[in-house]
This record gives sequence, C-alpha cells and structure tokens, in this order.
Amino acid sequence: MMPLPGRFLTSALVRREGDMFLFDCGEGTQVSLKMLNLSWKKISNIFISHMHADHVTGLPGLLMLSSQVDRTEPLHIWGPQRLGDYIDSSRRILDMYINYEIIFTPCEEGAILETDEYTVNCFMLRHTKLCYGYSLVEKKRSGIFSVEKALAHKVERGPKWALLQHGSSVENEDGETVTPDMILGPQRDGRKFTYITDTMYFPELADYAHDSDILFCEGMFDSSLEEDAREKKHMTSAQAAMVARDAGAGMLCLQHYSPRYSDKELKLLAAEAREIFPQTVLTRDRMSFNIPLKD
Amino acid sequence: MMPLPGRFLTSALVRREGDMFLFDCGEGTQVSLKMLNLSWKKISNIFISHMHADHVTGLPGLLMLSSQVDRTEPLHIWGPQRLGDYIDSSRRILDMYINYEIIFTPCEEGAILETDEYTVNCFMLRHTKLCYGYSLVEKKRSGIFSVEKALAHKVERGPKWALLQHGSSVENEDGETVTPDMILGPQRDGRKFTYITDTMYFPELADYAHDSDILFCEGMFDSSLEEDAREKKHMTSAQAAMVARDAGAGMLCLQHYSPRYSDKELKLLAAEAREIFPQTVLTRDRMSFNIPLKD
Repeated sequence: MMPLPGRFLTSALVRREGDMFLFDCGEGTQVSLKMLNLSWKKISNIFISHMHADHVTGLPGLLMLSSQVDRTEPLHIWGPQRLGDYIDSSRRILDMYINYEIIFTPCEEGAILETDEYTVNCFMLRHTKLCYGYSLVEKKRSGIFSVEKALAHKVERGPKWALLQHGSSVENEDGETVTPDMILGPQRDGRKFTYITDTMYFPELADYAHDSDILFCEGMFDSSLEEDAREKKHMTSAQAAMVARDAGAGMLCLQHYSPRYSDKELKLLAAEAREIFPQTVLTRDRMSFNIPLKD
Repeated sequence: MMPLPGRFLTSALVRREGDMFLFDCGEGTQVSLKMLNLSWKKISNIFISHMHADHVTGLPGLLMLSSQVDRTEPLHIWGPQRLGDYIDSSRRILDMYINYEIIFTPCEEGAILETDEYTVNCFMLRHTKLCYGYSLVEKKRSGIFSVEKALAHKVERGPKWALLQHGSSVENEDGETVTPDMILGPQRDGRKFTYITDTMYFPELADYAHDSDILFCEGMFDSSLEEDAREKKHMTSAQAAMVARDAGAGMLCLQHYSPRYSDKELKLLAAEAREIFPQTVLTRDRMSFNIPLKD
C-alpha cells in the first residue's frame, strides 16, 4: 500500500495472443508499461480487485494515455460497483479526454467474460472491503492432428484436414464419415492464470486457483506475523504457498509485500514459502514469465 | 501529461526552515519523495495548479501515506474549487484511511496564505481550464546586528541585544531609548519561489514572477512549435525565458516537457531558452537547488 523505490504499487499484466489483460492498476502502472515498451492500446480488459487506493489510483492516468494513441476497440473494465463511480467521477472532475469507449461491468461471482478461447472467472476474497480474485482460463485446444490416421482413414491431404482440425467431420474417399476424434489426439489443456490479492487465507482459495500455471498471489508477511496478517485480512507467504500447493499450481508468484521488509529481507518470505511450495518466486517490478502452451 | 521512464509527472517541493510546500502532485510524486528520503509529514501545504490528471492523480496516494506516520498537524490543500470535490470523492470512493485533518481552501487571486515569515500568492494563468500559478515570498528579515553600534549607543551585551534584533526598542545605560534601526543594518530581502504551469504566454507573467530567485516554469515546446503551444495553451522554453528575463529572476528551472522530446532532444529547449536567459536549467526528476539567504 506504499510504493518504495523500485517497488511500484500492485499490477499484473497478462499478454495472450496479442491481447492484453491488466489486473489492478496501482500508481505507477503506466510508467512500467512505458518502460516495457508495451502498447497500451492492446489492453482489452482491466480487472480491479477492490477499491483501495494502492490498487486503483493508476487508472485515471492510464485511461488518459489512450488519447495519445489511436484506439478504436472499446476498453472493458471490471470490478466492484464502486469502480464505476470512481471512473465516472474521475472523468468528470478531471475533465479527462477519452476518445474511445469504456465499458464498465460490475463483477459477480462466476464466469464474467467468455469467448471461444478463454473464460475469466471472478470469485470473492475476504478482505476489509469487497474484493475479487480473478482467473483467466484458456479453453481446451483440439488435439494434435495425426497425418498417419488421416491417411489410414483415406482422407487425402487438403481442405478436409483443416476441417477436421477445426472440429468438423468430413467424408473420405469411400464416402464414409470421418469424425475429428478419429484423427486428432486427445484435447490439450489450456493455460490458467490466477490473480489473488488482498485477502486473508481461507482453504477455498485453492479451489479457485486449481491447476493454475501461474498463481499470482499476495504474500505480505512472514510467518511470525500470521496473527497480524489475519487481523489485517492479508496473507503470509507461507499461506500463499499452501494455496499454491493445494491448488496443484505450476508456479507461485509472490507479490504485495509489506513495506516493512527491505528488498533483502524479502528473501525470508520466499524461503518460508519454498518450504511448502518450492516453485515460488518473489516478483519484482517489470519481471516477466512465459507460460508455454501445453503438450 | 504522459510519464516516461525517468520523467515522472509534475511536482515541485520547496523546503524552508523545516517546513515543506508541495506544488502539484502528479502520479509518482510519492515515489520520488521516498527516493529522496523526505519526511512526508513535514509537508504543511499543497498547492495544485489545476484539475488535469497529470497534476493531481498522485494526491490520493500521498494523502494515504500519512496513515503510515504520526501526523498531528493538519494538512492544508489549496487549488481550484473542484479539487475539494476530488479529495472528497477520492476519500469516499476509496475508503481512504486518513488520521489527520485536511483543510481544503479554494484559491482566489492574491495572498492566500500569510505568516510572520512568508506569503503565498496565487494568480490566474491562461490554460484550457481554470489554472493557478503560485509564488512563495519570504518577508524581509531584519538587518545585520552591529556590535559596534550597540556598544557605541551604550547597550551592553545581554538580553537587550536579542530584543533589538527582534525589533524591540530598549533603554541604554543612560536611560535613553535605543531603537532597532539605530543598531541594525538595512532590512534584508527574503527569497522568492514562483511556480508557473500550465499556461500560454502572456506578458503579465513577468509581474507575478518579479524578482524570483527561482522561477519554476513550463517550457513545453521548442520555438518552431510556438503556434501549437499557443493553441494548446502552453509555452515554449523561449517564452519561459522571456518571463524569467523580464521578471529579473535569478534562475529559470524549465519543467513540463512535451513527451515528443527525447531526453537528448530536450537540450534544444534549454539552448533556445539560454539565448534569452542564460541562467536556465532543464530540471530532471529529483534534481534539487539551494537558494541561499540574501546578504
């Protein structure tokens, strides 16, 4: 909740197939976007966890960046109902020049956004005020195309292969129907990114984060402050690791550290988490991770 | 209006006798305060020029920093009427925890703040919306105490010397009245800091900035874009230099550069200004200047 030199406020960006998703937007987010040379106009959706200043005051500046670029696509913003008031009052009071459409939708628990390729789920966290976690889940991709099987089923190379790959049945040389499952391998899992902050620990977090490739989760305190964490409705890094372990996550990215820890002292948080979940990293400003496609 | 790596948004801090005055508060201001290791609680007054996001969106985060420190003194905030709405709606929508008093006063032209030691003046600029400039002017200090004259007037070393220094008359050994002007040299001028952004050029700016030790002034464009500057209600660096020259300023600190200029290209802005007013510097993030006492 307090920026430090080299530790801006909370935000995470997911880039997927040319599309960008922003989770929270603390003060300084637009500076990091610039430093990374990322094109702001490719952000299609912004998801805000809750209405505390350290998660949202970077938003007005970011929205205004748009006036610097051509943006024709609308920008979708998701979060608590009050976020809509915040955007409206910022636009009004600051006379913000915004030359594209902003579509705000208040969140509800469940799937809030669904396309052919992915779903964004929203779930309730337990903080001092209404706070949401999010997961971005890719749908399963079709299985690997088997040239051998296609030829064995007498489907010659050509447009019919593309139809099969995209899930349609075709007729083979003998006039028989060949279905995709006869040619394609098993469906391949999509990837999953889960974003959790701010919240106290509760076991169901692992259900929301189930099978995440990356769990981006707060780990604000070390274990000696577990009582404090619970009282302030925050988590220790060890609790974050328990969530990652119980969720079967691929990787835990710790974030949202208390300013009480110097950069050096943060190692303690990582060490405590790794005892429970070895694949833990301390995220730092502008660090990036690649999640490869599965299979 | 757009932050760049190494170029945060607009803010200037004046430190005087342990007291701090902040002029504008763009996004990232609290980060620089931290980097400079300056104690936020010593800021007694914040002056906002106008309600554009790049000058004010760092404010909510800064106000919340307070909850991290003991602050007993109220914080005074000055600016356009609408700034009051902004503070109120930010506090309400973001549930900001603020454990000290904030006293907002809408600005008017003239002396808005006066103490025994200094005056803060406010004046209207000419921008696309209501915008104020400010000057912080120290009052004259009493002249230098002359030990020779005191002894010549038969005032012995002791508490009477302090009374004379502080402006009171005393009785000498012979029961005669000795007044401060008999003992002290001529009054010494105070220092003056003037803050001007955002505005188009107009000649009266030099009157407001008259005799400033530091004129902290926007110089957004080079001279080839003078037309653009006027249209957008901004100034070229050469126009800022004209103000500094006509004001008889000690030093011109350029600020608020267009993002069209790379760090290297900013030298052009400085060069054009120096042709008119040699004592010109390009300010950069966290640069500081000392204004020595006069005489």
